[in-house]
Amino acid sequence: MSVNLVRYATADGAAWGVLRGDDVLPLPPEYVTTADVLGDGAKLARTLDTAPVRRDGLRLLHPTPGARIVCQGANYRSHMVESGMDPDRAFNMLFTKSTASLAGPDDDIVRPAHVRLLDYEVELGIVLGKSITGPVTVTDDNLSEYVGGFVLANDVSARDVQLPQGQWYKGKSYPSFCPVGPYLCVPDEREVARWRELRLTLSVNGAPRQDGLAGDMVFGPAATLSELSGLERLDAGDLLLTGTPGGVALQPPGALVQRVAGLLPEAKRWELFVKGQARSDAYLKPGDRVVAAIRTDDGALDLGAQHNTVR
Amino acid sequence: MSVNLVRYATADGAAWGVLRGDDVLPLPPEYVTTADVLGDGAKLARTLDTAPVRRDGLRLLHPTPGARIVCQGANYRSHMVESGMDPDRAFNMLFTKSTASLAGPDDDIVRPAHVRLLDYEVELGIVLGKSITGPVTVTDDNLSEYVGGFVLANDVSARDVQLPQGQWYKGKSYPSFCPVGPYLCVPDEREVARWRELRLTLSVNGAPRQDGLAGDMVFGPAATLSELSGLERLDAGDLLLTGTPGGVALQPPGALVQRVAGLLPEAKRWELFVKGQARSDAYLKPGDRVVAAIRTDDGALDLGAQHNTVR
Repeated sequence: MSVNLVRYATADGAAWGVLRGDDVLPLPPEYVTTADVLGDGAKLARTLDTAPVRRDGLRLLHPTPGARIVCQGANYRSHMVESGMDPDRAFNMLFTKSTASLAGPDDDIVRPAHVRLLDYEVELGIVLGKSITGPVTVTDDNLSEYVGGFVLANDVSARDVQLPQGQWYKGKSYPSFCPVGPYLCVPDEREVARWRELRLTLSVNGAPRQDGLAGDMVFGPAATLSELSGLERLDAGDLLLTGTPGGVALQPPGALVQRVAGLLPEAKRWELFVKGQARSDAYLKPGDRVVAAIRTDDGALDLGAQHNTVR
Repeated sequence: MSVNLVRYATADGAAWGVLRGDDVLPLPPEYVTTADVLGDGAKLARTLDTAPVRRDGLRLLHPTPGARIVCQGANYRSHMVESGMDPDRAFNMLFTKSTASLAGPDDDIVRPAHVRLLDYEVELGIVLGKSITGPVTVTDDNLSEYVGGFVLANDVSARDVQLPQGQWYKGKSYPSFCPVGPYLCVPDEREVARWRELRLTLSVNGAPRQDGLAGDMVFGPAATLSELSGLERLDAGDLLLTGTPGGVALQPPGALVQRVAGLLPEAKRWELFVKGQARSDAYLKPGDRVVAAIRTDDGALDLGAQHNTVR
């Protein structure tokens, strides 16, 4: 049965605990990194007997301090179609987000002063359970060796930076652009295989925007970790974000408009794009309340919910 | 006066040393990371009195173990024009390369089996001299506080992965795609200001391909570190690659061809692109010898030369 770990603020920094009902049971202070708690914190959690504290009274932090973040772009058909991309393309699009974008699950999402098109993307995050230092073949059969935990993440995106600048790293890396948590959900081996049943939802000011199953991904975690192992060194505690289902604010103009716009100089084309998108009221604005959650419909795996206010 | 540090293979791993003429003076074994040697190795180097070993007998390693790599895309007008980009665009394009792409200055460049369009990009690398953990304003006046060292790097690129897949991380991150070194050139405060005078050259099988001055960059290190400090946490020893001058193998079709191609479906367009480029004999093929170097014309700053064979 899965264990949910949390990281929370203390007077002298941060501590880890285990969620049990409405309580948190603190782990010993020698657990510092995500790798520490994945190593044996989850096992310890099953027998833990420390004095519980109320979860309500804690400020939860993201459970992936210092993580490298590798992301899959446009990995759900529903999101590819709405973004004007070819849903039958044959490659797994990879990019990175900065470590500095990591934020707590209930922290404010801060819109930089120069950003107009602030968007959300609820995503399933895979927290690496062990280092990958060279090519490995990950399959559904051995996936549980590599998955340390599941997390809820929001891949917040400044569309007016991300898209006109071509490379997505900057427009997705501003501070607070990656709320992660609340839970580091550590599944047992059998539960890892249930990732497809995780349902991702996101609402803005109470209105549903995104609702999709992780099983709708084009490239699943096993295939992605296999390819990534040929490209990058990853440590236990690093984070793979697996893409977002449809329903984001970004809704590009139709194919015909895009082809006509393709005849314009690049700078002019993007100026028109930003102006057009800015008319949409779907983008996030100060004061908006974003609620995101991921769980299986039967509640056996529950990654918790984020509550973020935009400012 | 600048000090050139080298990292080299030993029976039990790696060691650091100081270049003096044709010799290397080993630093004590407690120096392990790039941050260690930047901390006081460079100072120590001035008074070092260990028994010299011949540089010729050493296998040099890259001097940035474990570095995060942030890159500037298309940062020289000469390269932007040849790549079909708008040289007057107003933004600094940022993306990342994997840590796993790091390789030694004389290591082979390995072309993955599926890659047809293997390209080179000689680049000036800035090795961070101290951590950046939040927004800072870096100017020409305080740049030397942040620059720990200069290095020569080759931002090797699989154009047939990088460009059709949109995001550049993958096509620039395969193992051996980032030879760095041979020297970690630690300039004194006055010499930091001379970065503009560094001349970048690259030849393939003896034929000159690239020759440009760092001063031709559009966004210099101070502006780039300032912007990056608002996006990413960087540690001493992390690496900023600042873009490449003109002369790479990639020479996209003219504007008219591109506009006509823009009317084709995306997958078809890229298929034609790869087929067209594959006719060029400028791309790297097994057996090619790549020699890259960076130095000031007066030799006061000399980042050394790389000799790589493609296989």
